[in-house]
Amino acid sequence: MVTVEQVYQALQGVMDPELKRSLVELGMIRDVAVDDGRVSLTLALTTLACPLKDRMAADARQAILALDGVQQVDIRLAEMSAEEQQRLKQGEAQSRSVEHLNDIRHVIAVMSGKGGVGKSLVSGLLAIALRRKGLQVGVLDADITGPSIPKMFFPDGARPGEGPVAILPAETRTGIKVMSINLLLEREDQAVIWRGPLIGKAIQQFWGEVLWGTLDYLVVDLPPGTSDASLTVMQSLPLSGVVLVTAPQDLAGMVVRKAAQMAQYLQVPMLGLVENMSYFVCPDTGKQHDLFGPSHAEAVAARLGVPFLGRLPIDPQIARQCDAGRIEDYPAEAFQPMADRIIELAPAARSPILPVA
Amino acid sequence: MVTVEQVYQALQGVMDPELKRSLVELGMIRDVAVDDGRVSLTLALTTLACPLKDRMAADARQAILALDGVQQVDIRLAEMSAEEQQRLKQGEAQSRSVEHLNDIRHVIAVMSGKGGVGKSLVSGLLAIALRRKGLQVGVLDADITGPSIPKMFFPDGARPGEGPVAILPAETRTGIKVMSINLLLEREDQAVIWRGPLIGKAIQQFWGEVLWGTLDYLVVDLPPGTSDASLTVMQSLPLSGVVLVTAPQDLAGMVVRKAAQMAQYLQVPMLGLVENMSYFVCPDTGKQHDLFGPSHAEAVAARLGVPFLGRLPIDPQIARQCDAGRIEDYPAEAFQPMADRIIELAPAARSPILPVA
Repeated sequence: MVTVEQVYQALQGVMDPELKRSLVELGMIRDVAVDDGRVSLTLALTTLACPLKDRMAADARQAILALDGVQQVDIRLAEMSAEEQQRLKQGEAQSRSVEHLNDIRHVIAVMSGKGGVGKSLVSGLLAIALRRKGLQVGVLDADITGPSIPKMFFPDGARPGEGPVAILPAETRTGIKVMSINLLLEREDQAVIWRGPLIGKAIQQFWGEVLWGTLDYLVVDLPPGTSDASLTVMQSLPLSGVVLVTAPQDLAGMVVRKAAQMAQYLQVPMLGLVENMSYFVCPDTGKQHDLFGPSHAEAVAARLGVPFLGRLPIDPQIARQCDAGRIEDYPAEAFQPMADRIIELAPAARSPILPVA
Repeated sequence: MVTVEQVYQALQGVMDPELKRSLVELGMIRDVAVDDGRVSLTLALTTLACPLKDRMAADARQAILALDGVQQVDIRLAEMSAEEQQRLKQGEAQSRSVEHLNDIRHVIAVMSGKGGVGKSLVSGLLAIALRRKGLQVGVLDADITGPSIPKMFFPDGARPGEGPVAILPAETRTGIKVMSINLLLEREDQAVIWRGPLIGKAIQQFWGEVLWGTLDYLVVDLPPGTSDASLTVMQSLPLSGVVLVTAPQDLAGMVVRKAAQMAQYLQVPMLGLVENMSYFVCPDTGKQHDLFGPSHAEAVAARLGVPFLGRLPIDPQIARQCDAGRIEDYPAEAFQPMADRIIELAPAARSPILPVA
């Protein structure tokens, strides 16, 4: 016996060729009734003059006839009321946002200003440390032109899932949810040659059109710089705060101060400063080498008035495991206290304070 | 005795309040005559109905009266011909470009896609190597949000010069001309929070509104990524080619392939690939440590079909000298053959192939 639910399910796959969305989702399927092997329903069109009505009816009929036990399909055509049409149009405008279905408690952006100081590594290690505490964790890779997150977590690549209402993030071996432009590209080394507005749009889609579900923490990995991507994240995501990453060079210190200034300017709380690539311990002699000069991280943190969260060494094992997509196997005990500090410091997620530019 | 030249000089400082340029520059001062202590001239306005005419005349009178030996100033008002007005408008549009006064033979962009792999270091060392050959060299720092060049070259900071017709680049100790947003900021750690269009505009101004003079090579230091800054440089500067910079991580290799794809897409020749941070030689044991994993640079270069230019080690001395603004004291013999290769490979500068977006 065919059920009404089965009919709806079958019609999920039938699209309005113009609106590119399923007839069910658009509210066009009504009065479904099943009487033995005979299915009847009303197809509500935006207008009875719709040139595509026959095609949609035929597609719907075919989808239902494909169900076991259906012998006959009766489709009545009807026209939506003006109010229904209006609702459909508004729905179309917001249709793809699933923000209301997500419950994300803390959003933490990882930022440095300068490239290559280890933002993505810190983002990854922070997500792993939070996950090891049994929390629900996601990583939104906001670096659209140089995304690093997928390579660190997925040894064999990954694709986002296709959920019934929205795109689903890919999941790592330990259950961290990840969204990145590189999950959508055919080849990981494909260039994304976009000017700022498209970059901003992609980030907003990763936030609002991805079904993250319930997360305790969403870590946002920012690209270098204080331009479009950072602006979009700071202006349109409800950030709990930013974690700043620097390296021992004065240069990195200078640029991280620019990043901090941006956070201050946009009134996003700074949770603390992490120094990466602080030193290298020679495996033969055990001696510590300051490869990029002596650390000034405490001084930089003090000057910015933010907590100093600690330093991470240069460790060839990290590079190896990141390249192999096995960052989750890295012990990273050194990072656990930093993560604890960040949990302590991160206030509840706040609403965006500025309109989206 | 006051001369006509002195009058013109005095009027250089008098501005059209609307066009914000000097009356002399705008061609509004005519028929200057000096008769003993009596100066007469015509002030040609775009329209006699100009509401600011009295103010301009008063400002001009005051400037001339300030000259020693002037007792009287007679100013006649006149209206420009339609043709003159047209010329003034066109002049206004192009006024600030001094591109026609520059003679720049080769423009080479240094690019990596990924941040922190040493683009700025390679840009700096390339400029220094070319300069050591006695060539005229400039560096255009196209990294507007994270500029690194000034810190490497100027131990005490620097400012661009104010030339008679345009801004002059700052000059390093060995005579390399440098333009960077950080030379214009009050504090080096001031954030530049701009979206893409402003970033592009700044780069175009560094190219067209800076009096570089005659240069054999202009090295353009690009920011990470394949977005606005890289697009603007590739679309609006007559590049001879790009030098790609990578690091041993697979990740850096992946991102540099994105950068290469962008160069191919925009039809900019690739001159070669440099690998930075290839290894660290322990000063105690002399043993080489591959801190960021084994090098794949030759393979990456081969895959891209570009010459492999060589590798640079991690050298704490470089970090120290960069931070101290003394990169020009670094011996960098390792880089000289790379520079020679780049000279060989760089064809004469080509015209832009695409309209500015």
